[in-house]
Amino acid sequence: MTDGPSKMLLPDGLRDVLSPEATREASVVHGLIERFRASAFRRVDPPLVEFEDSLLDGVGAPTAPHTFRLMDPVSQRMMGLRADITVQVARIATSRLTRTPRPLRLCYAGPVLRVRGTQLRPERQITQAGCELIGADTPEADAELIEIAIDALSGVGAKDLSVDISLPTVVPSVFESLGLDKDTRRRARLALDRKDAHDVAALGGDAALRLGALLDACGPAERAMEKLLAIDLPPMAAAERDRLARVLELLDESAPGLVITVDPVEHRGFEYQTGLSFTLFSKGVRGELGRGGRYAAGAAGEPATGVTLYLDSVMRAVPMAEEVQTVYLPHGTSPAQGRALRDAGWCTMAGLSAEADVAAEARRLACTHIFDPMRGADPIPLDDA
Amino acid sequence: MTDGPSKMLLPDGLRDVLSPEATREASVVHGLIERFRASAFRRVDPPLVEFEDSLLDGVGAPTAPHTFRLMDPVSQRMMGLRADITVQVARIATSRLTRTPRPLRLCYAGPVLRVRGTQLRPERQITQAGCELIGADTPEADAELIEIAIDALSGVGAKDLSVDISLPTVVPSVFESLGLDKDTRRRARLALDRKDAHDVAALGGDAALRLGALLDACGPAERAMEKLLAIDLPPMAAAERDRLARVLELLDESAPGLVITVDPVEHRGFEYQTGLSFTLFSKGVRGELGRGGRYAAGAAGEPATGVTLYLDSVMRAVPMAEEVQTVYLPHGTSPAQGRALRDAGWCTMAGLSAEADVAAEARRLACTHIFDPMRGADPIPLDDA
Repeated sequence: MTDGPSKMLLPDGLRDVLSPEATREASVVHGLIERFRASAFRRVDPPLVEFEDSLLDGVGAPTAPHTFRLMDPVSQRMMGLRADITVQVARIATSRLTRTPRPLRLCYAGPVLRVRGTQLRPERQITQAGCELIGADTPEADAELIEIAIDALSGVGAKDLSVDISLPTVVPSVFESLGLDKDTRRRARLALDRKDAHDVAALGGDAALRLGALLDACGPAERAMEKLLAIDLPPMAAAERDRLARVLELLDESAPGLVITVDPVEHRGFEYQTGLSFTLFSKGVRGELGRGGRYAAGAAGEPATGVTLYLDSVMRAVPMAEEVQTVYLPHGTSPAQGRALRDAGWCTMAGLSAEADVAAEARRLACTHIFDPMRGADPIPLDDA
Repeated sequence: MTDGPSKMLLPDGLRDVLSPEATREASVVHGLIERFRASAFRRVDPPLVEFEDSLLDGVGAPTAPHTFRLMDPVSQRMMGLRADITVQVARIATSRLTRTPRPLRLCYAGPVLRVRGTQLRPERQITQAGCELIGADTPEADAELIEIAIDALSGVGAKDLSVDISLPTVVPSVFESLGLDKDTRRRARLALDRKDAHDVAALGGDAALRLGALLDACGPAERAMEKLLAIDLPPMAAAERDRLARVLELLDESAPGLVITVDPVEHRGFEYQTGLSFTLFSKGVRGELGRGGRYAAGAAGEPATGVTLYLDSVMRAVPMAEEVQTVYLPHGTSPAQGRALRDAGWCTMAGLSAEADVAAEARRLACTHIFDPMRGADPIPLDDA
């Protein structure tokens, strides 16, 4: 569709999606959900707005600064316009579905809104699609989520996929075991975030040694695993490493050839994650396609893991929509003829008044074929008409 | 899915849609849009929020009292959370798509929110799906919209459909031609809204005669048309009657057997409609499935007609979702075996740890079949396992 002059501007970061992109996005969402459902993830559809108490609770807390607030005139309580869906699904799992057997698999798709865009992601409305696996703490669950994300993305045509696995609890566990003071932790965190080996070394002592080794382990999975195994880690961090080893083993079976990197020191964006987390990429595509990881669902902190795909990036990773082939039905085509064509898979556009030059009218309306109601045969390509 | 005790309540009129309903609604929306697209309506996806100036303009004006407002921190201007999508599609047609040839066919689907529910429709979030046909003023366009709504609803399984056609501009045109004063108009309107023939008669003179005849014309299309033809109408109203006659003729061809009633005095809910309007019903189903009609799009008042379907009512009119057949894959099933089953159309649920009694575990998780990784044949129904 062509863009005419825009007299009425939309707010920054909000846009009208036109055809064929709108159709393509809906079909990609449909494709992702179908893959999730095929692996027994049941769809749930929480509302766009709910009370802020529940929306910004637990795993929803990091979205608080990004969430639009609304006063509910009915209850006189504040509501939030969701900036994320995971927290809503966790709420459903731990309230309405507490009695549903675990592990519980749920999936969802829908729009979220953010108060402000970021430089990397200027959009303020994004469609998310995702899966949550609640009540299972096994590496099998971690691997399943990564595999299903990769499978769903491949299914809609995304190529050259890779996953970057993080262990956001390992560094805090090492900090704890080393008994680092607050200031040193801050310095160490900064150095690790910058991947600055020099500044890590400058911490000196065991901190320099262990954190340096963790930093050095960042990279392709196999090499990273070898390096991690050589580090003397405190029990909690060692357990995370063992979990990673098992997840890599499972992925090697279920997604052979998948490019996997490991970054044991990354924590940005995983502040509320309680264990193995990951980010999904497609080679050459700007922005991450999705991310996921372990979290604690609900007040009781039920073990859970999930993955969220961001449709803005996903759409950049999938093939473009094909142009629609449309048959122009001249005024006077019978309803039955039009229906027969649609039943045969054609897209038909009805002429609403008689035209002297039917082919010219069909071309003007960007149709690709015309139908001859007298002959009643197959539609004629406009090049030949 | 079962409902456990709900600790965290949602605001009134907002709800979590669970499986299988959430899946079913998504599939019904998908089905409706596919029908719209097959008749060359191109999908557009406007944002959930936009500036209130554009959202509450023209055909959007009636939604003003129902629309949540938000302050946009970026522009410092007020935005509205849409309560209707038609106005957004009209904005797109008359701004970004001004240069796209007419008639322009657009379709959409998505959620809308309302500040308060009504007694008839307590829901504050509803999914809408609809079509807009912009830049055509012919009866063919009116008939096309009714036909496509009926076709799409039938396509998703709604039965016993009927349409009630209104001519909301006829009564004002008769008022005008009779030169009725404001007070008499008010009394007449009230009597007509109540369908109170006695009060209409009490108006006396030509008003009683003509308005009484219009009221008497309400009913099945064929009889209504006969009665309308016998009334001496002012030119604008007579033109609307002629349009109705032609639309009925077209529908008789394109949707034979469709139950059509005509109500030439109804105007409630059509206050911003500029001509032939309609409401869609399914026998025995509470609430209207949708409504539509003529309106003036954009500042230039481009002739347009559209139809909006309300998914809450539509879902009551379509068959229930079928129960999903799920195969339990015992721990140790190879990824390739699971994939082969999914490719063959099965829904599979992976066992995340080894279980002594696989059948019991599969039953606990509400699976219908189990897979035997050793035998590797077809999944075994749980009744036989």
